[in-house]
Amino acid sequence: MHGTEIGKPLPGFAGGTLDRVDPIRSDPARLAAAFADPATRQLVLDGLEPVEEDGHLVLEPVEPGADVANHVLLGIDPHGRPIFARLVADLGPAMVPTPRSRAIAGLVPAEEVALYGTARSLVHWHARHRFCSVCGGATNPAKAGWARRCELCAAEHFPRTDPVVIMLAEHRGRVLVGRQHSWPQGRYSALAGFVEPGETIEEAVAREIYEEAGVRVRNVRYVTSQPWPFPSSLMIACIAQADDDTLAVDASEIEHAFWCDVEGVRAAMNEDPAAPFIAPSPMAVAWHLLDHWLANVAPGTASA
Amino acid sequence: MHGTEIGKPLPGFAGGTLDRVDPIRSDPARLAAAFADPATRQLVLDGLEPVEEDGHLVLEPVEPGADVANHVLLGIDPHGRPIFARLVADLGPAMVPTPRSRAIAGLVPAEEVALYGTARSLVHWHARHRFCSVCGGATNPAKAGWARRCELCAAEHFPRTDPVVIMLAEHRGRVLVGRQHSWPQGRYSALAGFVEPGETIEEAVAREIYEEAGVRVRNVRYVTSQPWPFPSSLMIACIAQADDDTLAVDASEIEHAFWCDVEGVRAAMNEDPAAPFIAPSPMAVAWHLLDHWLANVAPGTASA
Ligand SMILES: [Zn+2]
Ligand SMILES: [Zn+2]
Repeated sequence: MHGTEIGKPLPGFAGGTLDRVDPIRSDPARLAAAFADPATRQLVLDGLEPVEEDGHLVLEPVEPGADVANHVLLGIDPHGRPIFARLVADLGPAMVPTPRSRAIAGLVPAEEVALYGTARSLVHWHARHRFCSVCGGATNPAKAGWARRCELCAAEHFPRTDPVVIMLAEHRGRVLVGRQHSWPQGRYSALAGFVEPGETIEEAVAREIYEEAGVRVRNVRYVTSQPWPFPSSLMIACIAQADDDTLAVDASEIEHAFWCDVEGVRAAMNEDPAAPFIAPSPMAVAWHLLDHWLANVAPGTASA
Repeated sequence: MHGTEIGKPLPGFAGGTLDRVDPIRSDPARLAAAFADPATRQLVLDGLEPVEEDGHLVLEPVEPGADVANHVLLGIDPHGRPIFARLVADLGPAMVPTPRSRAIAGLVPAEEVALYGTARSLVHWHARHRFCSVCGGATNPAKAGWARRCELCAAEHFPRTDPVVIMLAEHRGRVLVGRQHSWPQGRYSALAGFVEPGETIEEAVAREIYEEAGVRVRNVRYVTSQPWPFPSSLMIACIAQADDDTLAVDASEIEHAFWCDVEGVRAAMNEDPAAPFIAPSPMAVAWHLLDHWLANVAPGTASA
């Protein structure tokens, strides 16, 4: 299963349709021409928040006299229009989705949600990387906003993308779901955590499930992936096999976790009020992971 | 196929056996106790290079008076020994594997190669993040070396892990291999590139193959993953389907690329001097990708 499977909604922020035009990024003349093109549009953001009107993101012409150096070239859209976003100076850590950034997935087409996510990650990265981590010198945007260069030591810095594993452990026809202390009442989802230096995706899945729930897993299978712009994660969704269902939940990370059977997962995905938990929304890759498990792995399906 | 498949060698730097002991990282008392434990060992590095003796990495007791704040806790090894690495101040970008760091894969067991890779990525990250990207202030190690904190603005910074897609396009029983200008004569491998903010793994695979070779692909399938500590990548290996074999190679990235049939790939993997190319070494995940294709996907195999 991939985000592009026919008939399924995409996970939020997947499905971008811009051509990222890598060769233009390193070519100042082509970049200047793209910025000066009358067709060029700038994605309007309110800080990091999306701005929507009549079911679409708001795009506006670049202001006269604007400096291309303060913009990131997001790409060329299917109408041939170069699309930029304006960089801003001061932003906080922005680790958590805001209500407006969540709601945009229900208001505009998927490819515009993806455009917004890309812009959000890049604008945030620039605002939080105005100084060089090597020497402390000031940095300036480079490569059409896809890098920053240090004025002092000339080090080049590139946007971060932080891989995160998000996964279901499976044991005898049931899957492990958990909830964090801060989540709305009743909401449960897949466990998740950052991939660390020196480990594979499979090793990160096994480590995180053991750290958070005390469960050992093997046979990790990749399912799908999603960009998650809070601020700039790559969600890598997997299913793994547990041989023992004994739980030892780490209370500092997880409030509660339990093994849910296929009827319970189906009820949650159908938004049945009697379901044993409230499922994540289809914008979250965890929804797609549960949906994949129900359709392809759970007892009664072809591969079970 | 995963790095842990029975009977296969692991990709280099996969297969670490240390318990990363996340709870100790945030507990100064437990961290101090681990550092003071007489069983504790420090991994010896020569700058970023590995140091080997008698088929093993060199580990030494921590020097008397050493400061835990200048060390990263890599984890607890299977003998129960806490293993640290000492941080160093000045290092260059270190983007390319050195001959010594490549050779270590043939000199010590796989789990020690993984330990070295983890240490290399973390020591390098610290040396290149002595200043705060938000405000330019000095940063200090925190959380047992798994973070740095800014003295001025209190921002927390975490080690980078940069996801990279590495992939074979497949067309009618042949796969696409390419070579970079800097590689040894005759060496070809899978194409590769960084995942960017705002895209899925599948979208990054399609973008990179199109950028580098002009080939459109669909049906991207995940194969396996590998940590690659130059300086800190997560290699994500995939196979994708091409409908057209016309090549338009980007000469700025790739010197040459061609479609190789199953006999040619098999000859290269067997190190046949008459093979149409020289395959990457088994330490590279590209070797495992070619091996997986030969065993599971190529014409004549079960799924072909
Ligand atoms: Zn600098
Ligand atoms: Zn700071």
